[in-house]
Amino acid sequence: MSAPTQDRIDIEARKKGAEIIYKTFLNLLSSLEKGADPKLVIPKRTLANTVFDVEKGILKLGVSKLERKFLDMNESRRFMQTLVMAANIYRALIENEYPTIRDLYYRGKHTIVFHDLDGRHREENTWDEQAESDAALRDLEVMLGLLREDLMILSKEKGKVVGNMRIRSGNDIIDLSKLGHGAYAIESTPDLIEFLDVDAEFVLVVEKDAVFQQLHRVGFWQKYKSILVTGAGQPDRATRRFVRRLNEELGLPVYVLTDSDPYGWYIYSVFKVGSIQLSYESERLATPKAKFLGVSMSDIFGYGRKKPYLTEEERRNYIIKAKDLDIRRAKELMNYSWFRTPLWKREIDMFLDKKAKLEIEAMASKGLKFLAFQYLPEKIQTHDWIE
Amino acid sequence: MSAPTQDRIDIEARKKGAEIIYKTFLNLLSSLEKGADPKLVIPKRTLANTVFDVEKGILKLGVSKLERKFLDMNESRRFMQTLVMAANIYRALIENEYPTIRDLYYRGKHTIVFHDLDGRHREENTWDEQAESDAALRDLEVMLGLLREDLMILSKEKGKVVGNMRIRSGNDIIDLSKLGHGAYAIESTPDLIEFLDVDAEFVLVVEKDAVFQQLHRVGFWQKYKSILVTGAGQPDRATRRFVRRLNEELGLPVYVLTDSDPYGWYIYSVFKVGSIQLSYESERLATPKAKFLGVSMSDIFGYGRKKPYLTEEERRNYIIKAKDLDIRRAKELMNYSWFRTPLWKREIDMFLDKKAKLEIEAMASKGLKFLAFQYLPEKIQTHDWIE
Repeated sequence: MSAPTQDRIDIEARKKGAEIIYKTFLNLLSSLEKGADPKLVIPKRTLANTVFDVEKGILKLGVSKLERKFLDMNESRRFMQTLVMAANIYRALIENEYPTIRDLYYRGKHTIVFHDLDGRHREENTWDEQAESDAALRDLEVMLGLLREDLMILSKEKGKVVGNMRIRSGNDIIDLSKLGHGAYAIESTPDLIEFLDVDAEFVLVVEKDAVFQQLHRVGFWQKYKSILVTGAGQPDRATRRFVRRLNEELGLPVYVLTDSDPYGWYIYSVFKVGSIQLSYESERLATPKAKFLGVSMSDIFGYGRKKPYLTEEERRNYIIKAKDLDIRRAKELMNYSWFRTPLWKREIDMFLDKKAKLEIEAMASKGLKFLAFQYLPEKIQTHDWIE
Repeated sequence: MSAPTQDRIDIEARKKGAEIIYKTFLNLLSSLEKGADPKLVIPKRTLANTVFDVEKGILKLGVSKLERKFLDMNESRRFMQTLVMAANIYRALIENEYPTIRDLYYRGKHTIVFHDLDGRHREENTWDEQAESDAALRDLEVMLGLLREDLMILSKEKGKVVGNMRIRSGNDIIDLSKLGHGAYAIESTPDLIEFLDVDAEFVLVVEKDAVFQQLHRVGFWQKYKSILVTGAGQPDRATRRFVRRLNEELGLPVYVLTDSDPYGWYIYSVFKVGSIQLSYESERLATPKAKFLGVSMSDIFGYGRKKPYLTEEERRNYIIKAKDLDIRRAKELMNYSWFRTPLWKREIDMFLDKKAKLEIEAMASKGLKFLAFQYLPEKIQTHDWIE
């Protein structure tokens, strides 16, 4: 069956993924034929092997590698799991399937029945929990140098986009400026998207879905030629990759708008630098040039000559007292090198001093016109952001 | 400012909402001028006043009403809150704003300073928590006979749709069959959508976002002319209203596909009958004719002459043992009258007997072609669903 929405890019991506898997495991086979012990060489995904590349501004894996040997009793189970995973992904690629990580867990799950050296009947499950199959997938990703999206593995989608551009996905051309009040849900495999006509000057990434809708309805991206994206909270991989491509391939500046609190800063950080646990993704998913547009502490309280956007009465009504957890999170963030710039230091210090946080909705409640046509454009025009 | 995406339907909806608010509170004013005690008459939103309308097949509010009197010390605070909420919504309507419930919380939040009869300085907040402003909004909805969507109040969007139809939203026409691998995010105000050309024979509502994507990619809705919707887990109001409109206005049958467990059944129930806590929404949001397509217990184990879709080995690998919570939930559902049909009784009894649940991903892991081109069409053709 040839899937109706399957297109040239999809076919090529499958071919590439399948070839890399094929070659990698052909090497294993050749070394076996030469009588060598079967082993896989896999970059280490440990924190100790996670480095911050100052030049590129992203987290990535270091050079340490591990050898997973089939003949090592402690390793043979994970060796087997890696092969089960690779075989199922390979099959899905050539059969035009789009598995999810949950599917891959189910597809690989079965019981191996064997007799041990003493002739006893033994049973061993390929895996019991999805945590095991997920780990096998991550090992494969770093081993092959491909992300799951390159292997046509789907995840839950959360990201949305509208704005002044047209894209091609599958065999369709979608005009992201003609979506009414709705939006385009960003596909799980954003590298299959082709950028066509773009008439935008910047990208605004909005943490909260409802604020995204408000800016969309009020015509923000039409007035200030732009592309509006939301990850609806903690962004998924596809949204991060999509934003990165807008920045890298189209050269558009990326501004991030979140709540004014450590959780908002962390969301910004995930867009900019990547997640600390999964640093191997960052090279493809992070947007190191992303700028934190706000809401910043100086927007709330003013700083030096800058006047605050809130009156004292608004501050009294809108500010939420920071909790211990917020304070703890803020102090944690101070440890990361990308939060050690002078402006971030000032931001975090002000937060720790005032112990105050603010939701972006508080700005919106001053009126959408204020948010869309005063606050945001003024911040962009005066370069009032934090990098 | 006239918002660029604002259209005729939007303008009319605002006008209607504003007029109803105006008239309702004009009545209050007139009765005040006549010297009457100020009071609001509000349908009771209590469980005791929630009835299941057997004929319509939905939950709705009964006829009980409460009187909220300004001059009653126990009521005056909530009286004031209702008016604060009404005033802010009215203002937003005529100023072309699109507030969220969080905005309405902020917009209404302030401190009333007054002197009591003894001349003492007193302060009272309009409200402290969003729970209070949300309750005021719900009171207004039942009092005005309008849902928040009619009042242009936005919520987080989760629902997505693709399929053989075109719609108008705002001033744009969107072809839901030309969205590549992505999808259309259903807007918060689905009554502003106009259905244009529809070439579909049914609606398939899929609980899980990733399964929705898979069926989309594999071309399910193209092969079986249909409209594919997901609420991505527990559906939001907009998705429910959208599905209801597809059923009611276009006469399309609605099939719901969930995991085979009490949580999946509950999601089906929310689409079909509405949520028990918020029954006043159901008259507009529920789709009483929705059918539960699967995954059913007889799909897993067979029943009578029906053969199971899973082999014994697949059952061994895929079935998840039900937890105590699942059992408890199943027994709860048995109390609801719409789960007391013979087929539902059989389904729940089988579940309680086997203590087994199954994720839809387990079916997908037998191959997308199996799921899309065998399991689903066979179920629909043989009317193998539960109502």
